[in-house]
Amino acid sequence: MKEYSSYTKAELMTLKSQLEEEYQAFKAQGLKLDMSRGKPGADQLAVSNGLLDAITSKDWEDNAAGGSLEYRNYGILTGIRECKAIFADLLNVPAENVIVCGNSSLNMMFDYITQCMLTGSGAEPWKDQGEIKFLCPCPGYDRHFAIAEYYGIKLIPVKMNDDGPDMNAVEEMIKDEKVKGMFCVPKYSNPTGATYSHEVVDRIAKMKPAAKDFRIIWDNAYIIHDLEDTTDELENIFDVLKKYGNEDMVIEFTSTSKISFPGAGVAALAASENNIKMITSRMTIQTIGYDKLNQYRHVKFYKDVAGIKRVMKLHKSILAPKFKAVINEFDGSLKGLGIAKWTKPNGGYFISLDVLSGTAKRVGELCKEAGVTLTTVGATFPYGIDPEDKNIRIAPSFPPVDELMTATKLLCICVKLAAVEKLLSE
Amino acid sequence: MKEYSSYTKAELMTLKSQLEEEYQAFKAQGLKLDMSRGKPGADQLAVSNGLLDAITSKDWEDNAAGGSLEYRNYGILTGIRECKAIFADLLNVPAENVIVCGNSSLNMMFDYITQCMLTGSGAEPWKDQGEIKFLCPCPGYDRHFAIAEYYGIKLIPVKMNDDGPDMNAVEEMIKDEKVKGMFCVPKYSNPTGATYSHEVVDRIAKMKPAAKDFRIIWDNAYIIHDLEDTTDELENIFDVLKKYGNEDMVIEFTSTSKISFPGAGVAALAASENNIKMITSRMTIQTIGYDKLNQYRHVKFYKDVAGIKRVMKLHKSILAPKFKAVINEFDGSLKGLGIAKWTKPNGGYFISLDVLSGTAKRVGELCKEAGVTLTTVGATFPYGIDPEDKNIRIAPSFPPVDELMTATKLLCICVKLAAVEKLLSE
Repeated sequence: MKEYSSYTKAELMTLKSQLEEEYQAFKAQGLKLDMSRGKPGADQLAVSNGLLDAITSKDWEDNAAGGSLEYRNYGILTGIRECKAIFADLLNVPAENVIVCGNSSLNMMFDYITQCMLTGSGAEPWKDQGEIKFLCPCPGYDRHFAIAEYYGIKLIPVKMNDDGPDMNAVEEMIKDEKVKGMFCVPKYSNPTGATYSHEVVDRIAKMKPAAKDFRIIWDNAYIIHDLEDTTDELENIFDVLKKYGNEDMVIEFTSTSKISFPGAGVAALAASENNIKMITSRMTIQTIGYDKLNQYRHVKFYKDVAGIKRVMKLHKSILAPKFKAVINEFDGSLKGLGIAKWTKPNGGYFISLDVLSGTAKRVGELCKEAGVTLTTVGATFPYGIDPEDKNIRIAPSFPPVDELMTATKLLCICVKLAAVEKLLSE
Repeated sequence: MKEYSSYTKAELMTLKSQLEEEYQAFKAQGLKLDMSRGKPGADQLAVSNGLLDAITSKDWEDNAAGGSLEYRNYGILTGIRECKAIFADLLNVPAENVIVCGNSSLNMMFDYITQCMLTGSGAEPWKDQGEIKFLCPCPGYDRHFAIAEYYGIKLIPVKMNDDGPDMNAVEEMIKDEKVKGMFCVPKYSNPTGATYSHEVVDRIAKMKPAAKDFRIIWDNAYIIHDLEDTTDELENIFDVLKKYGNEDMVIEFTSTSKISFPGAGVAALAASENNIKMITSRMTIQTIGYDKLNQYRHVKFYKDVAGIKRVMKLHKSILAPKFKAVINEFDGSLKGLGIAKWTKPNGGYFISLDVLSGTAKRVGELCKEAGVTLTTVGATFPYGIDPEDKNIRIAPSFPPVDELMTATKLLCICVKLAAVEKLLSE
């Protein structure tokens, strides 16, 4: 394999013609494929169909006076006992530090940031503190950025390394008391798949930001979402925070969206006693309670964390071949050309592809023109602006393997074609 | 029957001794009864048990490629088509003016007020407009008041008449541009059971408040919750608003909390095209979607509004005798004494009892001491302060009839005892 940068202009021109021909052949197929979101495929949804039978009217016939009777009625604001217990076990925190809500952890994060804006996270409401800022390891999750952007919180990008955010930069930035928080996907990060190392977690946990009301959104969305037998290990953030008396700095979120059903799962948070009190005080006004029957449905279906782990093995058996297919295609088509790098995650939902600087948008356009939708290029950076225009988030979960292969082959051609166009224009 | 006010001091003293004796006899029973919240009873919950069997894994086996397949996955932000159609029919508005969310309409109201605070209801964010105010017909719903109080919105009480709020007062108050909205429970109002008359609805619909961003929270919680064969008729607010080009002024809310399960129902709102756009723009950031399987479960169980009406007849058959029992006891024990008035609603969840001015709190204390919990006295007024200390909200739905009878008998004794104490102290 010869790197593209060493090609002569004439060689590049020849290559361009070849690639254009291949591209046109794909385009002629009239594809309509979607690799844009980390959405489980139909085969994954089938894995959890039993959840739909986990509770029936019989549960209340046979047990008319049972303890679960009142799960149909109002009350139990912060979630049912049995469901808290499972999340407590999963997150390895005491059950009294857990709140279980509806189906969306994103909604819980949104609500928490909203609470901070309007009534503060412990000090003055954020809305009254002028222009405030949030750190966001990049590439990162566009829906985190969107919440901050919605509230006019200025997003400060931080480089995401293989072991987590660049902590030298973070430690520098938190000296600014306008910096109020940070978004983190600490395990199988969206989109790079990186897991924060023990050292990074330790440096995060011991931070003393200038802002006393600094809060970390610890979005542990992929806590148990392995793809390989070699799994990443993430420190329990609350254990480490405790060492430094810093438990109030982090709110941890997770959900069963990619365990049971994305549209009908259960979401939870874990937080310090102080934060639980503060969050509950708002919830008391916000609602009378979340859907406790769906919480109970999950309890009856999974029973415990071991039950969740059994289901996650089935998800893995479906997802791993899809990830492998994409990575094999990248290895076969792009390796050694000096125009692309990609991650090989042990878990999560994404592969992060870095193409030749200045060509990512063009790759997205070429794919789209030929019928393959990628995650909007740039979306992995705040304000949708990738300063180097090189990162593309690949979401292999949704399409069936054959479609995925077709889409990936096309993608590789587009990556090469855009690179050649770029090199020829220089 | 002789009115208490015409009793001599000596007669009152004798009466007091008798009442105290009766009261002590109740106290000795060690009761533990709850009439505090509008919570359906166990027999009502059983009415909807079939909902738990409405969808099962079979729905996806037999129909693997069916249109409802994706209800398990992400997406469909504003609710599934079939569920919107039912709410559209129930509220008598076009389906495109409906948003279906999770299980709590209170949460949707909270979210809407939050949106108004942070980003405005069309003009400047409410948080940036200094001290703003809300009108609240009183007695009213404490959880409405709580939302406004939480955000520091000043609550202005408006007298609630038998045909709705005192519109002369309302029309005067909305000349103040700091008055940004009003809470309404227009049908079978909480707690008086009154339904807004056609004239009141018309006067509301044609209001031109000084505040251009004035919004009415039209909480149609008891839209179909009849107790009698004679039912109240409420005008469709959006039809009337249309006449005056005022559709943006009202957001209507409802839910199945008291149709299916309070803890696991489905909530919806109806609003103008402008408001739907504005609310959706926030939802896009807030969540990826609500629990669509629970929406689908409700669709399959009820099928249509006729299906809901069938279930509401069962609720009525359980609730009506409870209301009758309370009202009969009031009629038998309190009529003609000049110390109490009570409503006889055709629907809803409450009876509003007005006792002798200055004695409601005392009645609440006496009841509590004897083991019967009422809705916190004062809760039906902003800031929990009933200026005349006379209103008590009675919630007959939760206790079984025999317990309800016992509690009501005790309540009547407490009403009389507190009145006698008051008269003696004057």
